[in-house]
Amino acid sequence: MKPLNPSFAEEVARSFAQQTIMALIGAELSLVEPGIVEISLPYRSDLAQQYGYLHAGIVTTIADSACGYAAYSLMPPGSEVLSVEFKVNLLRPATGEQFLARAEVIKTGKTLTVARADVFGISNAAERKQIAVMQATIICLQKDSQE
Amino acid sequence: MKPLNPSFAEEVARSFAQQTIMALIGAELSLVEPGIVEISLPYRSDLAQQYGYLHAGIVTTIADSACGYAAYSLMPPGSEVLSVEFKVNLLRPATGEQFLARAEVIKTGKTLTVARADVFGISNAAERKQIAVMQATIICLQKDSQE
Amino acid sequence: MKPLNPSFAEEVARSFAQQTIMALIGAELSLVEPGIVEISLPYRSDLAQQYGYLHAGIVTTIADSACGYAAYSLMPPGSEVLSVEFKVNLLRPATGEQFLARAEVIKTGKTLTVARADVFGISNAAERKQIAVMQATIICLQKDSQE
Amino acid sequence: MKPLNPSFAEEVARSFAQQTIMALIGAELSLVEPGIVEISLPYRSDLAQQYGYLHAGIVTTIADSACGYAAYSLMPPGSEVLSVEFKVNLLRPATGEQFLARAEVIKTGKTLTVARADVFGISNAAERKQIAVMQATIICLQKDSQE
Repeated sequence: MKPLNPSFAEEVARSFAQQTIMALIGAELSLVEPGIVEISLPYRSDLAQQYGYLHAGIVTTIADSACGYAAYSLMPPGSEVLSVEFKVNLLRPATGEQFLARAEVIKTGKTLTVARADVFGISNAAERKQIAVMQATIICLQKDSQE
Repeated sequence: MKPLNPSFAEEVARSFAQQTIMALIGAELSLVEPGIVEISLPYRSDLAQQYGYLHAGIVTTIADSACGYAAYSLMPPGSEVLSVEFKVNLLRPATGEQFLARAEVIKTGKTLTVARADVFGISNAAERKQIAVMQATIICLQKDSQE
Repeated sequence: MKPLNPSFAEEVARSFAQQTIMALIGAELSLVEPGIVEISLPYRSDLAQQYGYLHAGIVTTIADSACGYAAYSLMPPGSEVLSVEFKVNLLRPATGEQFLARAEVIKTGKTLTVARADVFGISNAAERKQIAVMQATIICLQKDSQE
Repeated sequence: MKPLNPSFAEEVARSFAQQTIMALIGAELSLVEPGIVEISLPYRSDLAQQYGYLHAGIVTTIADSACGYAAYSLMPPGSEVLSVEFKVNLLRPATGEQFLARAEVIKTGKTLTVARADVFGISNAAERKQIAVMQATIICLQKDSQE
């Protein structure tokens, strides 16, 4: 997919840096390509649900931002991006030393973009298991024309 | 709806206290009734997305726990509860001084429960706007018999 | 909710009559109010899945049209309406002599509307059980400006 | 993925033949492999929504059955299969002379299976455009032990 904004990678990085929640949980932007974004998150014991797994809401946090930025990477300059909705299936207990959300755009449109994210738990530095899948709709707003 | 576990409220509170993510973000359990759970979250600037709104993943975090515990409140003693999947529509930018996720069980089953959560942003101590709606599926596992 | 189109009820009825699938399956528009639409469907043995229950896709067909028309009833004159996405939970086997999908708008917007539909199976003329719930996003297009 | 039921293909075909809705709309089972099922549907003018596109509910009907049978193909003998929930994004107006729903299992479990379906509209015998994507949860019931 071809980016409409030549400085899409800088724009994504700049916007990601403004998401204060990413610093709080320790998430980092690890890949930005046209239509593809990855976010990494080391496990921390203060991000857990009742059994010590990564909380589904934090799985969602990195998957949602990955989808939003995958969509944003293909939008024209001057766009603003917001999540419309998403659906997440939790495939396995979210265990791992590290988590990776990888999002890809399925379909772009002038107003709406559809993306999917796969979230993996990574153990022993290499073994990767898919723990969740997200299907998401993202809206492109032109600045000064909010929905 | 009638609880099968007479100490459901204590069980929910005990489990909620084990969700370390709730302490990190500052969320509190504010209501537990059979099939109904509310979770409150004061806005903090370190929970935000790029425009300063509460991040959709944090909206989801409190909605998911509210749905899970609404389901758990109706499960028999000795149950474990996990989210199977959820879908969230973000209805408005998540602004407010305070957020409230209110979940209600729609349908219970031996294995699967379906719940819905409405999430509100509250400003000026009283004005309440709905910012999101979740529809979720929760599974009941008997201890020692994991899926 | 207040309709922007004074002839919304006629518009909904006219559009519904153009949905040829409704005639094929025997569905009828049974209620049109601002933001609320109901569609009825008598059970027929040629609408079934492998155990004789109403097929989930047909449950979805009436729920989707009900959501779409509930949204359409609140749109300005000259609008076109399309489904963006929906999520359906099947709560019980879809049994009944008659089915009813009742949709209500949760949130309107200039571009996007969010609606919910409850689908009921009705037996013995009166006993009503909820068999499904849909959460849907609908887009409003101005004629001659397709996405 | 390895099938647990050596006669999975016959079982899927036998169950599909019992879905009376498939005959009504003219859908056919076109591929059955372990964890993968395709269903084909020629366009007919009596399957349409108000603008003549294939109705989203019929798109869902073939996607849901494709997901269900993809899941069923991996279940042990004596299983019964029901849809728990699904979410569909409509990516483009559903136009084409022919439609194809292709489902693949993402994750199997003793009780729950997660599958995805892509639905394509096919024109001029070959040109294929993706019109929808489904993410679905399917439950495996042992005969005589209904939820």
